[in-house]
Amino acid sequence: MVSETFQHTGSFKFRAAMNTVLNSKAEHLVTISSGNFGQALAAACESEGRKCTVLMPATSARVKVEAVKSFGARAELVDVTLKTRNQWLEEFIASRQAAGENEIEVVSPFDDDRVIEGNSSLVDDLVPYSDRFDTVLIPVGGGGLASGVVQGLQRNSLSCTVYGVEPSIADDAARSLKEGRLVANETEPLTIADGVRTLSLGERNWKILKDGLNGVLTVEEKEIEEAVRLYYELANLKVEPSGALSLAALKKYRATELLADRKPLVIVSGGNVDAAVYTELLR
Amino acid sequence: MVSETFQHTGSFKFRAAMNTVLNSKAEHLVTISSGNFGQALAAACESEGRKCTVLMPATSARVKVEAVKSFGARAELVDVTLKTRNQWLEEFIASRQAAGENEIEVVSPFDDDRVIEGNSSLVDDLVPYSDRFDTVLIPVGGGGLASGVVQGLQRNSLSCTVYGVEPSIADDAARSLKEGRLVANETEPLTIADGVRTLSLGERNWKILKDGLNGVLTVEEKEIEEAVRLYYELANLKVEPSGALSLAALKKYRATELLADRKPLVIVSGGNVDAAVYTELLR
Repeated sequence: MVSETFQHTGSFKFRAAMNTVLNSKAEHLVTISSGNFGQALAAACESEGRKCTVLMPATSARVKVEAVKSFGARAELVDVTLKTRNQWLEEFIASRQAAGENEIEVVSPFDDDRVIEGNSSLVDDLVPYSDRFDTVLIPVGGGGLASGVVQGLQRNSLSCTVYGVEPSIADDAARSLKEGRLVANETEPLTIADGVRTLSLGERNWKILKDGLNGVLTVEEKEIEEAVRLYYELANLKVEPSGALSLAALKKYRATELLADRKPLVIVSGGNVDAAVYTELLR
Repeated sequence: MVSETFQHTGSFKFRAAMNTVLNSKAEHLVTISSGNFGQALAAACESEGRKCTVLMPATSARVKVEAVKSFGARAELVDVTLKTRNQWLEEFIASRQAAGENEIEVVSPFDDDRVIEGNSSLVDDLVPYSDRFDTVLIPVGGGGLASGVVQGLQRNSLSCTVYGVEPSIADDAARSLKEGRLVANETEPLTIADGVRTLSLGERNWKILKDGLNGVLTVEEKEIEEAVRLYYELANLKVEPSGALSLAALKKYRATELLADRKPLVIVSGGNVDAAVYTELLR
């Protein structure tokens, strides 16, 4: 197990955000995010002296809105049932440009080469332990982490079997891999794993994952919840539901031929979960 | 901050238990414990092929009883309102000896030189980081950890200010230090920090702590609860109430002359907290 729950801002997203800010010339970075990427971008921008705005769905947890603000960023609540995320972004940028602001850039939480490269640094951290695993299980939403890991494994010449893990009710990556083309969910799936509530993989991510993934394993909502509890009870680890996807898959598939005789590594992508959701899960 | 929540069996107690088992010739080790030491001794005995019995107060959390059993130890529930812990231990030993078992030894969770020496290994692990702190805050119950840390600091020639931290409603160590003699609570104090519900410091621990401690800081129950929540919200760290004592003290005393201009290190002693208690705290 490798845990990103103690990474800056509590998830792997800080790797992506920091690499993006360091490789952007814009004075003002903007993203739309209900959760971890917003916090990560806000923290990275604060660290590098850039301005940051995070558009956040109006349903975002209060604590996440406050976290974004605590890093000096502007948090703007938007109603994503009225317009799509992209429409909100375009509108925001247009309004800023109309106000004379030009050094402004929109950053995708996953579909960006700098994001993928930033996430690939996770594998650099794993190199000293590479004899301990030959199979990697990775939570998949937009595919930013998974494509980063695939890229990092290649760069470090590590030969590994790589499985993405998705909730069954958000199985667009599994379907994409099966059909050999990028398939999207009709609507944002309401899985408890809120970090992977994406419509589809990003295009740049898909380009890497279509050959880089050996497969996508799917797990049920109950199995995700059970994995969160297992981390609590057996590892003293506070994990968010998205972060627990990989353990849920390990538990479900460890006795199958996919994982038998393998040395699996589960990646825990983050730990930021609202107390209200978490206490409900522990009940 | 140094966290023992990811130590084997989830608390610093494994250091004590393992060192005790390695330095005992008995075939069968026995202790009385509602929590972390019982688990730790059971795990250490399993690892070294010894028999282990843990007498557990009948009020012990089910999950802790199961944890002890999962390491192959025998868990015997006893009613500590009927007889003292020592009486239960003496009775158990007498019954085993009557049954012809002689290679049996009772181990104290804190008042034992092997326990103190085992706990002192925590400081060995801190040596590479010794430039980062000059003051250490340590939860105090029986004083096993605090006396181990004092011993470890001396052995490694680290000059540090050392504060014990106690709940205000279990302030026997603070009173002992003030009066210059070992003072006991009248009854086991019902602090939420269940790991420090001891009647008094152990004699061996007091001998080290009476000169080794620079002071004992006390915190209120509400402050302990708040510290557990802070770890959850700001550090993604699952901490048991006893483990959060040191942060509670840091928060309370950081602006006072005791800690101003100091580089404090908080020791998080363990993370094993029942889901029912934890969810109540997060509410």
